[in-house]
Amino acid sequence: MAKNLNFYPVILAGGRGTRFWPLSRKKRAKQLLALDGKQTMIQQTVSRLLPLAPAKKFWIITNNDLRLAIAKQLTKLPKAQLLAEPVGRNTAPAVGLAAFLLLRENPEAVIGMFPSDHVIADEERYRETLQRGIDIAAAGENIVVLGIRPNRAETGYGYIEAGSAFQGPALRVRRFTEKPDAEKAAEFVAAGNYFWNSGMFLWSARTLADALREHLPKTAPLLEEIAAAFGTRKFSAVFRRLYPKCENISVDYAVLEPRSAKGDAGHIFCLPADFGWNDLGSWTALHEHHTAKASPPEGNLVACSGAFMLNARGNYIYAPGKFVAAVGVNDLVVVETPDALLITTRQHAQDVGKVVKHLDEKKLHKLT
Amino acid sequence: MAKNLNFYPVILAGGRGTRFWPLSRKKRAKQLLALDGKQTMIQQTVSRLLPLAPAKKFWIITNNDLRLAIAKQLTKLPKAQLLAEPVGRNTAPAVGLAAFLLLRENPEAVIGMFPSDHVIADEERYRETLQRGIDIAAAGENIVVLGIRPNRAETGYGYIEAGSAFQGPALRVRRFTEKPDAEKAAEFVAAGNYFWNSGMFLWSARTLADALREHLPKTAPLLEEIAAAFGTRKFSAVFRRLYPKCENISVDYAVLEPRSAKGDAGHIFCLPADFGWNDLGSWTALHEHHTAKASPPEGNLVACSGAFMLNARGNYIYAPGKFVAAVGVNDLVVVETPDALLITTRQHAQDVGKVVKHLDEKKLHKLT
Repeated sequence: MAKNLNFYPVILAGGRGTRFWPLSRKKRAKQLLALDGKQTMIQQTVSRLLPLAPAKKFWIITNNDLRLAIAKQLTKLPKAQLLAEPVGRNTAPAVGLAAFLLLRENPEAVIGMFPSDHVIADEERYRETLQRGIDIAAAGENIVVLGIRPNRAETGYGYIEAGSAFQGPALRVRRFTEKPDAEKAAEFVAAGNYFWNSGMFLWSARTLADALREHLPKTAPLLEEIAAAFGTRKFSAVFRRLYPKCENISVDYAVLEPRSAKGDAGHIFCLPADFGWNDLGSWTALHEHHTAKASPPEGNLVACSGAFMLNARGNYIYAPGKFVAAVGVNDLVVVETPDALLITTRQHAQDVGKVVKHLDEKKLHKLT
Repeated sequence: MAKNLNFYPVILAGGRGTRFWPLSRKKRAKQLLALDGKQTMIQQTVSRLLPLAPAKKFWIITNNDLRLAIAKQLTKLPKAQLLAEPVGRNTAPAVGLAAFLLLRENPEAVIGMFPSDHVIADEERYRETLQRGIDIAAAGENIVVLGIRPNRAETGYGYIEAGSAFQGPALRVRRFTEKPDAEKAAEFVAAGNYFWNSGMFLWSARTLADALREHLPKTAPLLEEIAAAFGTRKFSAVFRRLYPKCENISVDYAVLEPRSAKGDAGHIFCLPADFGWNDLGSWTALHEHHTAKASPPEGNLVACSGAFMLNARGNYIYAPGKFVAAVGVNDLVVVETPDALLITTRQHAQDVGKVVKHLDEKKLHKLT
């Protein structure tokens, strides 16, 4: 595949992924786990983008808890481009900083913004879609979002309402919506022109920088000042001093929603993505993902040294090194680590984040 | 309490207690576990009998897998009286051997046969009941069985049908019955004159020896020959050679059932036991036992270093040293050891023995 010389992947890897507790921890977040295959989620994210851009063009935005661990997992990437936010400020300042940094390096830079913890089944198709998006983003002030065709009335994602055709498979975006309720979600799926917001965007550094100057007029100059210090001795101090002053806001809310309100003048386009996307949002999603791939007997997925399942169906059990016996239990999620044991159900696995919230409140830092 | 100088406790400790897997193992059977309090089950068994007999009068019958561990737990008992059966032959040969051994030591010996893995709430009352039973057993050819007043239509125990009053609270025994079905068990409980067979018996060594000679004419001479070798250098060899030739049969089936068929001529008496007996037959029974004592919040019993329970009720979780989080789960039994993890329900905990059967079949000896 021909590489676009102006393409720079920017991977956002500051999330905590608390719903994978007790496996995920502050210093070992979801993106650092090998939830699907041998590579970790962030390693997979980089691997599937390497055919589109050389390692030296990757930027990773993460935090101080994860920086070292990520550096160890991604040894081929330039250390200097692995940035640790002094504090979390959501996606707008993170990708915005990348925009101002890249604008200095290459005025024609096209940024791809990628979450670091999703799985993609068909990587060829994924890169084809990206290539198309890069081309659209490279032409003027266009913003491209990858939209996932919904296969269920999911209430956990934002939706993109698409309008008329633009070029090739790309559609004009009418509107970004917040996470809907179940009824609304069902309507969206039935309508056929709604897509899940994948969190994957393509835009030129210039377009994004301009958008930030317009929509976040206080934050944009701070980011520009930080970017100007990059490569100098004072960078780290400037980063630490100014970044906390940036607004804590998502790029969706800061840029995409106001731009989409302009209609066609917003220049936002949706590329429908049909490459088998899964954000593995919970233990339940992970169970379903693996079950679909492997069809294990009775739907039991067990990571262990050996197992005996008796009248047990649909369980996800993670207890590496142990012999697991499950008798008369269905649809459970049980995850064991050296210091913790989680016992829940596939139905309740969404609530695992509440365990981490409890541990944070109780200051049980060793467990978080 | 006045000690009966002829009383000898014989504790049967050869059981495996597979329903407490993965905590119970061949070399760490249920009686060696501290399932209730700080002392192990067998230590409790000895402790509550010590006011009735000095340590030197205790005999323990166990097996080679457990002998060493038991010796470590019961350091005050005479090592020579801790016998390891070369093979398991059920209770008739075990207690029969004790009868022939004690007959040589003291022709007036009264034997109390005790399981090693039950709990007793009211120990004072227990000893009062035993004292009464010892007196009856010491007078001639009487056999005394401690009968537990049933509080539910349990199908897991044998029942004793009692008849007319004998002396004090003691009743004449009409009949021993096998484990009944649910309907029969309900009838027994409603009838009011049925008791659970506790497995605790009192009889003189002479009465038991005579009964074995009558009912197990091939086995009795073998036991007598083994007993004759006790204290000599050849004991161990004789034991190993002859014991496997003994019949594999319970004392209930070999002696008590045929004797009870004789009616009053059988001289069998039941002492109703109202001292809070529990045989802790499964994880479920253990959960109920502790819940009744401690009334934990939402009926959750959790052995751990810390816990967070969210929408969780009636669970028994054993994971010492770990932080346990249970979310949206009810009535589960989860037991974690360094090499194994059991996940079942209170309803299915009776089936845990099947796990051990599976492990035996697969020759996974490290786990059994």
